[in-house]
Amino acid sequence: MSYLETVAGIGENEALKRTIARLNSSEHALVGPGDDSAVISAPDGRFVVTTDTLIEGHDFRLDWSSAYDLGWKAVASNLADVAAMGAVPTALVVALTVPGNTQVSWLENFADGLKAACLALAPGCGVVGGDLASSDQVMISVAAHGSLEGREPVLRSGAQVGDVLAVAGTLGRAAAGLALLQSGNRDAISAYDDLVNVQRRPKPPIRAGVEAVLAGATSMLDLSDGLARDAARIAKASQVTLQIDPMQLQGFEAVLEEAARAIEANPADWVIGGGEDHSLLATFPSGSALPRSFKPIGVVLPAGPAPVLLGVQPVPERGWDSSRAAAS
Amino acid sequence: MSYLETVAGIGENEALKRTIARLNSSEHALVGPGDDSAVISAPDGRFVVTTDTLIEGHDFRLDWSSAYDLGWKAVASNLADVAAMGAVPTALVVALTVPGNTQVSWLENFADGLKAACLALAPGCGVVGGDLASSDQVMISVAAHGSLEGREPVLRSGAQVGDVLAVAGTLGRAAAGLALLQSGNRDAISAYDDLVNVQRRPKPPIRAGVEAVLAGATSMLDLSDGLARDAARIAKASQVTLQIDPMQLQGFEAVLEEAARAIEANPADWVIGGGEDHSLLATFPSGSALPRSFKPIGVVLPAGPAPVLLGVQPVPERGWDSSRAAAS
Repeated sequence: MSYLETVAGIGENEALKRTIARLNSSEHALVGPGDDSAVISAPDGRFVVTTDTLIEGHDFRLDWSSAYDLGWKAVASNLADVAAMGAVPTALVVALTVPGNTQVSWLENFADGLKAACLALAPGCGVVGGDLASSDQVMISVAAHGSLEGREPVLRSGAQVGDVLAVAGTLGRAAAGLALLQSGNRDAISAYDDLVNVQRRPKPPIRAGVEAVLAGATSMLDLSDGLARDAARIAKASQVTLQIDPMQLQGFEAVLEEAARAIEANPADWVIGGGEDHSLLATFPSGSALPRSFKPIGVVLPAGPAPVLLGVQPVPERGWDSSRAAAS
Repeated sequence: MSYLETVAGIGENEALKRTIARLNSSEHALVGPGDDSAVISAPDGRFVVTTDTLIEGHDFRLDWSSAYDLGWKAVASNLADVAAMGAVPTALVVALTVPGNTQVSWLENFADGLKAACLALAPGCGVVGGDLASSDQVMISVAAHGSLEGREPVLRSGAQVGDVLAVAGTLGRAAAGLALLQSGNRDAISAYDDLVNVQRRPKPPIRAGVEAVLAGATSMLDLSDGLARDAARIAKASQVTLQIDPMQLQGFEAVLEEAARAIEANPADWVIGGGEDHSLLATFPSGSALPRSFKPIGVVLPAGPAPVLLGVQPVPERGWDSSRAAAS
């Protein structure tokens, strides 16, 4: 490869230009990339904003995820945070740091992943600005924006005693995919590549966020750290206890059983403790018709000693904390 | 220090909570930090957004800048990009990565720097969301948002032949500060600490952005990469040549001469090539009354062979590209 094909070779500005040129534009951008700031439409006079970062060695490994995968995942994880407010994603800004010897083709594949995720998960949403800088580690920081379209945001704090607890999307698949990759068992990785691919390119149910708010959801969040830990966040914010029905998790576990057997793991751990599927957890008033994207998994009880119960058992707040993981 | 006082010790979520607790709130936040996303007011149905990243070893050194300095600088550099559109800054999201052994007190000082910069440079603006993760290098990525308050954004592409070229803020001081730090000359660093402090905590003229648009500015940008390079951006986007009058730069050079002599540097290089003061460069229709914050430094000519002239000499597009710097 020639020197000219690396980021250091062509310079950050040129590399950024070539990357941005591959992206789809946001339908909501009044001024797109290329000036000091972008200008985005916010028709109801408000916008939602969130930020999430992926770090090489902590959130991903370059030998397990392609540049395309990482672009996709950075978009998906941020869009899920927008959807969890009941909002429609409109615009992203992406800060990327890479070593200077990174091939420009890597950046192009990353851009293709950003674009593909926008088109697949939130059509109309696009990247409206970016920053490219040199570092020792690959780091991807995205800020995502959305429109509430005149509706009120769905917060974590609105769950009411008697509500139904429900989930849209998969549970435990990304964790299963990670465990497969960590096992190093090539046969299992190949046999269950559908799970590995959820880890690499999660497909959060973005539209389900709006469906939830239209159905009267009282609280909602994005399951990024696992059902146990994220359910506890709703419970604490709403000052209630969430009781999950273990019977309702059996379907989620069943699809993971074969893969779990192949690497001697417990599928229930993945379902209750695994994050990164970026599914949506929400509560709905008792008796309301749930959107078809949501499956009931429990009920909201008055606050007890444990924020989350699995049946009658308190659920430890398991989940993933990359900082603790790094320190351990 | 006890284990509990590091980020890894208390965990990222707890460390993030303690950091966010020190911040001022945004007057424009309808929903602040703590949920999946924040909700920000955008009264005229639009918002501006920009992102900029600072990387340890490339954009700063931890022995030259305190956590407070870095918080300040991350805010200042992003607010300048909002101001350069003619917008009023409203809200920031901040993604920070630090090694797990970073002291929580470092994070607290960082938060204090974020807050102080918001209060000093753009009262009413605040941090509405954040992300904290572990990495080998300190990395700070900010996305900043602003309101155009019903006015049209000022782009880089609007400069007209005959316009006056003008600058709000200082030129070359941050570059002088960096050169002083790089010189290792302790006496000079101490004698010219006002310049070193501009490098550490730049004070871009944020309000001058709105003043410019009210005065009819036809183009504007934030001088982050230096006058030569950033002026060329306006010239290319507007398809004109910018002619800078060297006489008008003498005042900017004069205040740097003593420091330059102390470390055998050329103050003119700092003024024309040095970035990071984050001053605003704008063009105004000929004969218009410039805002008091702006000083005229040149005129807009029809596009010639060079995008920028200093007197009659073409100006090489010098400036800082951290990727090239890293590769050289």
